[in-house]
Amino acid sequence: MSHTPSAEPALSHLDDAGQIRMVDVSSKLPTQRSATAQCRVRMSAQAYRLLTAQENSKGEVLNTARVAGVLAAKRCAELIPLCHSLPLSFAGIEFFPEDEHHAITVRATCRTDYKTGVEMEAMTACSVAALTIYDMCKAADKGIVIEDVRLKHKSGGKSGEWHSD
Amino acid sequence: MSHTPSAEPALSHLDDAGQIRMVDVSSKLPTQRSATAQCRVRMSAQAYRLLTAQENSKGEVLNTARVAGVLAAKRCAELIPLCHSLPLSFAGIEFFPEDEHHAITVRATCRTDYKTGVEMEAMTACSVAALTIYDMCKAADKGIVIEDVRLKHKSGGKSGEWHSD
Amino acid sequence: MSHTPSAEPALSHLDDAGQIRMVDVSSKLPTQRSATAQCRVRMSAQAYRLLTAQENSKGEVLNTARVAGVLAAKRCAELIPLCHSLPLSFAGIEFFPEDEHHAITVRATCRTDYKTGVEMEAMTACSVAALTIYDMCKAADKGIVIEDVRLKHKSGGKSGEWHSD
Amino acid sequence: MSHTPSAEPALSHLDDAGQIRMVDVSSKLPTQRSATAQCRVRMSAQAYRLLTAQENSKGEVLNTARVAGVLAAKRCAELIPLCHSLPLSFAGIEFFPEDEHHAITVRATCRTDYKTGVEMEAMTACSVAALTIYDMCKAADKGIVIEDVRLKHKSGGKSGEWHSD
Amino acid sequence: MSHTPSAEPALSHLDDAGQIRMVDVSSKLPTQRSATAQCRVRMSAQAYRLLTAQENSKGEVLNTARVAGVLAAKRCAELIPLCHSLPLSFAGIEFFPEDEHHAITVRATCRTDYKTGVEMEAMTACSVAALTIYDMCKAADKGIVIEDVRLKHKSGGKSGEWHSD
Amino acid sequence: MSHTPSAEPALSHLDDAGQIRMVDVSSKLPTQRSATAQCRVRMSAQAYRLLTAQENSKGEVLNTARVAGVLAAKRCAELIPLCHSLPLSFAGIEFFPEDEHHAITVRATCRTDYKTGVEMEAMTACSVAALTIYDMCKAADKGIVIEDVRLKHKSGGKSGEWHSD
Repeated sequence: MSHTPSAEPALSHLDDAGQIRMVDVSSKLPTQRSATAQCRVRMSAQAYRLLTAQENSKGEVLNTARVAGVLAAKRCAELIPLCHSLPLSFAGIEFFPEDEHHAITVRATCRTDYKTGVEMEAMTACSVAALTIYDMCKAADKGIVIEDVRLKHKSGGKSGEWHSD
Repeated sequence: MSHTPSAEPALSHLDDAGQIRMVDVSSKLPTQRSATAQCRVRMSAQAYRLLTAQENSKGEVLNTARVAGVLAAKRCAELIPLCHSLPLSFAGIEFFPEDEHHAITVRATCRTDYKTGVEMEAMTACSVAALTIYDMCKAADKGIVIEDVRLKHKSGGKSGEWHSD
Repeated sequence: MSHTPSAEPALSHLDDAGQIRMVDVSSKLPTQRSATAQCRVRMSAQAYRLLTAQENSKGEVLNTARVAGVLAAKRCAELIPLCHSLPLSFAGIEFFPEDEHHAITVRATCRTDYKTGVEMEAMTACSVAALTIYDMCKAADKGIVIEDVRLKHKSGGKSGEWHSD
Repeated sequence: MSHTPSAEPALSHLDDAGQIRMVDVSSKLPTQRSATAQCRVRMSAQAYRLLTAQENSKGEVLNTARVAGVLAAKRCAELIPLCHSLPLSFAGIEFFPEDEHHAITVRATCRTDYKTGVEMEAMTACSVAALTIYDMCKAADKGIVIEDVRLKHKSGGKSGEWHSD
Repeated sequence: MSHTPSAEPALSHLDDAGQIRMVDVSSKLPTQRSATAQCRVRMSAQAYRLLTAQENSKGEVLNTARVAGVLAAKRCAELIPLCHSLPLSFAGIEFFPEDEHHAITVRATCRTDYKTGVEMEAMTACSVAALTIYDMCKAADKGIVIEDVRLKHKSGGKSGEWHSD
Repeated sequence: MSHTPSAEPALSHLDDAGQIRMVDVSSKLPTQRSATAQCRVRMSAQAYRLLTAQENSKGEVLNTARVAGVLAAKRCAELIPLCHSLPLSFAGIEFFPEDEHHAITVRATCRTDYKTGVEMEAMTACSVAALTIYDMCKAADKGIVIEDVRLKHKSGGKSGEWHSD
């Protein structure tokens, strides 16, 4: 089977010599963009009970993770080498506890009015919020797992609307 | 079943009032510590083919993710609010491609000779390396999933050796 | 006295569930904005004499504080969790020595052409410049006090012009 | 009146030519050090009522300020030019509401086992926590004042124990 | 010879009192801007042979330097006190090996659509990429020299096109 | 000509597979280490005259570069991917004007009591101080050149004393 190069999507951060560089967005126009990423922090029954047992403590742990996630969204371009620095219009983190699975679903949403998407900002915010939950609960359970970090939704830009299955 | 409070592990970052603070390690002694964390980046056949098709490109993408992971290990305490800043003796990232699953396993190892463990440094390095792979391959597949970020092994410190199941 | 919730200003960083998030500025338009913050660093006669005795030294200490203040203005969004990252058009720090009170008044002005105000940038720049003076003079006086960090003036945006009393 | 140079304390960050440099601590030995700094955030009755009215909101705002303060303690050497980077053993922030004055007292404590003191870490943590409270309450009162940022106590090192009056 | 002050270009970061401040760009309009900077890393024959001997290693070292350069471009305003933070549209690093001189020419190009030039971003990216090559080769040659860091070209803005001789 | 691998120094940041990683210093002992790096900033007669004409301005520009250099020394490990984070005991920057060549020699010295050398800290501090001079004088001369960034001296550690020729 043959295919022409143009039929195959390329890795956008590689130039013709196969070397990395930021994608040039000089000629793109700003548009309203949004992205939502999600993951799930699954832990032992004991750790989950400690995390959720007292209203006060629960708030402190999850709020700390929320702050960490928002700060990480703003610093995404320092962490992910080829991300563009961009001014976020919004960053927010939501938590959805699932008592039956001893799990917390973490959802991060970012928005910008800029030339590139905010998928990486949302993915990074989500991951750092989850890592912060791990950190604060690891004394009770070192085996906590962060599952299925993934993009749920994006909108804006040339590729338009996208939803995960 | 009853149990006394002392029999229950506490969330170490909460004080008696249920408020967060760094764990005080003033009286702990430095010991050699190591931690290994692991996750798996699973993508479409097409994205995986692009990532691995040319030796040159593959090297650039994975090396970029490796650099991002090492840098993130060193900046862990800036991202995870209650982590102690500590001098890492070592940070390294390994990649294990799995052709049959279109997946890359990411493994991060950190070491220190200090008073606290380096679990969070390894977990953060692993996550940021995986996010960088996501970033560089997302033009080919927005649905890439980062699976099962978890601690595999730690050694050193009061709690000694620990292996995930 | 009764009042309806809508008559009461809300804490803008809390959502309806009382949880923090960045204020969404997606639909706001950029305007020219400016903010000036001020504080006062009061020290012992001896520390003040050392700080101001030699023209050369005085310049080095205050210039160092000025550099620290400008740098802090640019990094405000890394420090204050719910601040938006924004491109500053201007950041400047002025010092007003008061010989009779052994005090230095620190004034910081920031400007942007963006969707949110720069009050926090000015407040942070002012505080970090003052902290730097403290740091450089603390060998002579550990009891130095940073007094009355406050916003003096802001302009631009929906709420328009504001002056402290 | 004449005095010998040795009788006068010098500004420790200036060399003989009156130029700044970090103090050389090569020959100092690590000791246990601690520092506590304090300030007071005074606001309008209305802003104070909003901050403290609902237990949930109050926790979120103050916990966010606490996280910001702890993170700032760890990044002090990035902000204050001549501070030494050092590994903190502990950083904690406490809040003391004063209903009658519509004020929150912010107290920051830092500890290290290192060659230099942690006064600047405590002063910076305290300031950034207070600035974060300002940020989150400024929609209700732009005239909030951060009063009397000062060192309360330090211990360890050559100069030993010190208390503010 | 006399000349009027207005005939002499001033140092733009000094105000009338000779004190530093960011240049105020409030009233400037965004334009497409580009800058290219260049330097040369010259090393011993042995170090150059190690750097270039194996295709694999060569790629890892130079790609690591490339990543470091791109990241530094994005963080330029944190390092250079009076630089404006700005959103880069592009940052790329190229390497040109010169076998006969055991040297690598490093070229960095940055672009923005903003109110100020990106000369410092390109100069900083170029320097940090070169420093990273030094770091990775210094075990073989501590005497490596980074030569002639300079601006090659800029375009956009009031001063328009500029080329080095 | 043949040579055995062991006779050839290796690039220390590459493992056996030719992939980058931090050098593992777990088993090294801390020793007193020092490094001095140097470069030269050469500019037009006019730019040099502006830089040095007024004592006041000269102090501000060079002190700003000094502050930038010291701050960069402390953040070296964030910029140079495989550098170890380490606590600096000292960082200082000296400037040596050369009127006849319209040049400023920049010399940076760093010290630590740690397991790895501080060559990169000194090289980075020197480069960033020079870049800051470039930034502040570029309005008068875009063609300023940073020449011969190099290590002058190092001491401490296994390889002991080293001087450039």
